[in-house]
Amino acid sequence: MMIDFQTDPSRYKHWKLSFDGAIATLALDVAEDGGLKEGYELKLNSYDLGVDIELYDAIQRLRFEHPEVKTVVITSGKDRVFCAGANIRMLRGSTHDHKVNFCKFTNETRNYIEDATEFSGQTYICAVNGSCAGGGYELALACDQIILMDDGSSTVSLPEVPLLAVLPGTGGLTRLADKRKVRRDRADFFCTLEEGIRGKRATAWNLVDQIVPRSKFADAVQKAAVDAAGKSDRPADGRPVILTPLKRTISDNSVEYDTVRVDIDHRTRIAEFMISGPSEAAPADGDAANEQGVDFWPMKLARELDDAILHMRINEIEVGVWTFRSQGDADVMASYDAVLDREQNHWFMREVRHYLKRVLKRVDLSARTIFTLIEPGSCFTGTLLELSFASDRTYMLDGQFEGDNRPPATVRMTAMNFGPYTMPNGLTRLESRFIGEPDTVGDVKAEIGKDIEAVDAEELGLITFAPDDIDWEDEVRIAIEQRAALSPDALTGMEASLRFAGPETMETKIFARLSAWQNWIFQRPNAVGEQGALSLYGTGQRSDFDKRRV
Amino acid sequence: MMIDFQTDPSRYKHWKLSFDGAIATLALDVAEDGGLKEGYELKLNSYDLGVDIELYDAIQRLRFEHPEVKTVVITSGKDRVFCAGANIRMLRGSTHDHKVNFCKFTNETRNYIEDATEFSGQTYICAVNGSCAGGGYELALACDQIILMDDGSSTVSLPEVPLLAVLPGTGGLTRLADKRKVRRDRADFFCTLEEGIRGKRATAWNLVDQIVPRSKFADAVQKAAVDAAGKSDRPADGRPVILTPLKRTISDNSVEYDTVRVDIDHRTRIAEFMISGPSEAAPADGDAANEQGVDFWPMKLARELDDAILHMRINEIEVGVWTFRSQGDADVMASYDAVLDREQNHWFMREVRHYLKRVLKRVDLSARTIFTLIEPGSCFTGTLLELSFASDRTYMLDGQFEGDNRPPATVRMTAMNFGPYTMPNGLTRLESRFIGEPDTVGDVKAEIGKDIEAVDAEELGLITFAPDDIDWEDEVRIAIEQRAALSPDALTGMEASLRFAGPETMETKIFARLSAWQNWIFQRPNAVGEQGALSLYGTGQRSDFDKRRV
Repeated sequence: MMIDFQTDPSRYKHWKLSFDGAIATLALDVAEDGGLKEGYELKLNSYDLGVDIELYDAIQRLRFEHPEVKTVVITSGKDRVFCAGANIRMLRGSTHDHKVNFCKFTNETRNYIEDATEFSGQTYICAVNGSCAGGGYELALACDQIILMDDGSSTVSLPEVPLLAVLPGTGGLTRLADKRKVRRDRADFFCTLEEGIRGKRATAWNLVDQIVPRSKFADAVQKAAVDAAGKSDRPADGRPVILTPLKRTISDNSVEYDTVRVDIDHRTRIAEFMISGPSEAAPADGDAANEQGVDFWPMKLARELDDAILHMRINEIEVGVWTFRSQGDADVMASYDAVLDREQNHWFMREVRHYLKRVLKRVDLSARTIFTLIEPGSCFTGTLLELSFASDRTYMLDGQFEGDNRPPATVRMTAMNFGPYTMPNGLTRLESRFIGEPDTVGDVKAEIGKDIEAVDAEELGLITFAPDDIDWEDEVRIAIEQRAALSPDALTGMEASLRFAGPETMETKIFARLSAWQNWIFQRPNAVGEQGALSLYGTGQRSDFDKRRV
Repeated sequence: MMIDFQTDPSRYKHWKLSFDGAIATLALDVAEDGGLKEGYELKLNSYDLGVDIELYDAIQRLRFEHPEVKTVVITSGKDRVFCAGANIRMLRGSTHDHKVNFCKFTNETRNYIEDATEFSGQTYICAVNGSCAGGGYELALACDQIILMDDGSSTVSLPEVPLLAVLPGTGGLTRLADKRKVRRDRADFFCTLEEGIRGKRATAWNLVDQIVPRSKFADAVQKAAVDAAGKSDRPADGRPVILTPLKRTISDNSVEYDTVRVDIDHRTRIAEFMISGPSEAAPADGDAANEQGVDFWPMKLARELDDAILHMRINEIEVGVWTFRSQGDADVMASYDAVLDREQNHWFMREVRHYLKRVLKRVDLSARTIFTLIEPGSCFTGTLLELSFASDRTYMLDGQFEGDNRPPATVRMTAMNFGPYTMPNGLTRLESRFIGEPDTVGDVKAEIGKDIEAVDAEELGLITFAPDDIDWEDEVRIAIEQRAALSPDALTGMEASLRFAGPETMETKIFARLSAWQNWIFQRPNAVGEQGALSLYGTGQRSDFDKRRV
């Protein structure tokens, strides 16, 4: 079964999106029988990937289709239950890779909530009007404020460890420790408590920001939403950009969009991403780009690449190596980067820049080997060159191919390589690349706007290897095929360890540290074995754990 | 079979320790038939835990018994082979928990090499005189300088991923990325190469510091050693402190030393550590303490607690909860902290302080739940109070026990709680504890020297809970027993995520991120299954990997 990440509000089963001027409300009201797969009912507002795909869609639309929305309130559409977290029967019935992919996507979506709050003047507030457990509380933790109903029954909890013998897998532990900075002994107590915490202890321990009686709850949420809206710099009269359906053709061996085409070789387990650069020069300014909307080329690229990555991650899990190639005109591509740079204060340009940043982070976080191949006719300029910097290696042809009279390949940096596209570690890819020699970032910056051939690009440290025509075929083909033959698991661990040198952030802690522990636990018999807690939950039987402490 | 971490140079099988004034040489010359267990031969200077126990012993003795040693050269005693890393047959035959424990101890030992270099004026230089693979290169990476023989055959390599489908498990990936800051695409290439790198590429990529022809190798190593010694502040005439054998009695249910006693309840899987504070006042100054040597109380505590922790970690793996209790006189204990603080520039005091720091880090890194119980008669003062700050929770009795006329328990901070005992994240435990409210560190510092009762300690945030006599028995007993009943794996992941809020360092990256990935991979069939690469290595058969990328 193919999982599709495309949806729209008319098809939502689980979320209700409503608007009141600058304030939007996203109400979770999960359809029990609306699961993505058979075999489980989504009781108590518990969720599966399908629920989260809708949430991601809503978050994207709020940023682009609703420039006027300054506060988003997340709440429950059900009485006395906010959200019970990820559905346990769904987890129990899922393969290891699906569990991990599910957690990664939900983590990214929660990070986007924080991204909207921090960078886009669209603040998320969580109105917890019922019991809020596990992934439910982790959703709340991703919001800027948590307001808990003080009604004697609404609680927040992270009961995964005592009930299921797994970790809260969507950033809960990291956000407790590093966002809300809950004292470690209190966090320890809280995370081993089945029943959760409410009332004054919830605020004293900073698990929530406010507790409010039921009778005053709506007013308190409204006040917080209005206050947050008052601090926003989003325009009241921005021209909405409607996210019309993607043009996409999926076949057994390819996925095709306007700017992105993915060809898949299932035998060698290699996928080739070909990016086609823009063919017409960029619009003159932010308003003109805003008028183009989803047809503004960088916006189109972001949407298509986003969908392609999500598709390849979850539907093509045996394809272990992705190569990036490109074609197009460097000058035309540079004209788009120029307007993205020059008009960065225009609301739509800001959104496009942050969207491209998020898509590039998806590349960093994809558990696939990524090689970029730079050949004559390519268009690795500015934003597109960033794909090369996100790769594990880059091979660039030195000179021309025999019988091909196109000029040698070049790469070109733009201002977009020196600021807006931060990695999960908070650095640009060039800062991260040259972390051992920070002066080099300044040296290569002096080359902005120049077309750089392979030997010079190698000398500058922008690429990995520059074989010539004679060596290219063997060196590149062998490198890719050898890579595809290595253990997928060892590569995942290696790549996750080498891609993020330097500072750690909440994001890198979530994806590397927390996820790595969770992945380990998701393999352990104490959780997923026949007698494991995840398997036995709800049966009344108790797990007999392997007691060895590892 | 009990694994003993105590040894001495007269019993070494694998290392040869020699001295030439300020320069010591540690030569690895592994006895093939000297493995800790049956079933493998330690060929090509490969190692098992037994080899590393000797290395740890040597590193400790170099700091305490040899104040005159300013440079330590690590090299191979064999021709053309430096070290092949961890023994593969040993790994293959080991349980999951042994693999993980083995990696943790070797990681700690490599960190201590860096600790000696950074803090103790004892610089480690690695003279790589032969092939240096996997764990062999990771040992080199822990040294301050790596000098590689340029003889056409000596190479450095991390071939774990291509050969064994596991990660370099002793900090290799982290030190490549964050210590030597090797560019990520080069690191990616290097870590997938079976045969390693030598010659100019090894220096150009910063994999080693120098390459030197065989004929000039000894001179180059000597010069580097002399240069490093010239920058050391270690005394030429310090009084050596000989690490005489520990007094220790091990029975089925206890381990007993002078200052530490561990009682083990195998049924409940709980161990109680009782620390007995000093009974005689501290010596007047560093020289007097130096004269006491291993009988200087803080030194004795460090050695005994170190051994107890190592013993409990590896020999009592089903004992999941450790409790710390103490008894003694706060004034006497404070007198030791006072001399440790006042005489911190004395070479021996410096060594004791750093040793206590390292032992406390072992507590942080122990995959066990740790609770501290503070009762009347206890002695949680300064250095000993740090054990409470290292715990997951602390329960302190408010008032007296019925029928016990000892005064209510108090805790007392000293200067030692505010600087020298940094955690792996680089912060003191109080800085880490109050990371959400940094001013609180200053507030509690104002209470240095005061005896603080339970209610005030709770108010200051120094402890977790302060039950009174009526609640104590039930609340504490239930908390400990419930904890011991939870899944050991989930607790390990949870504790590793909650203990280290705030900044990440190379150490936290190694123990949390890299180790978590490695632990995951150590569970994956692609590595350890019957057809896994670790299982098939050396058989000529190739693994048929599960190709799913997770």
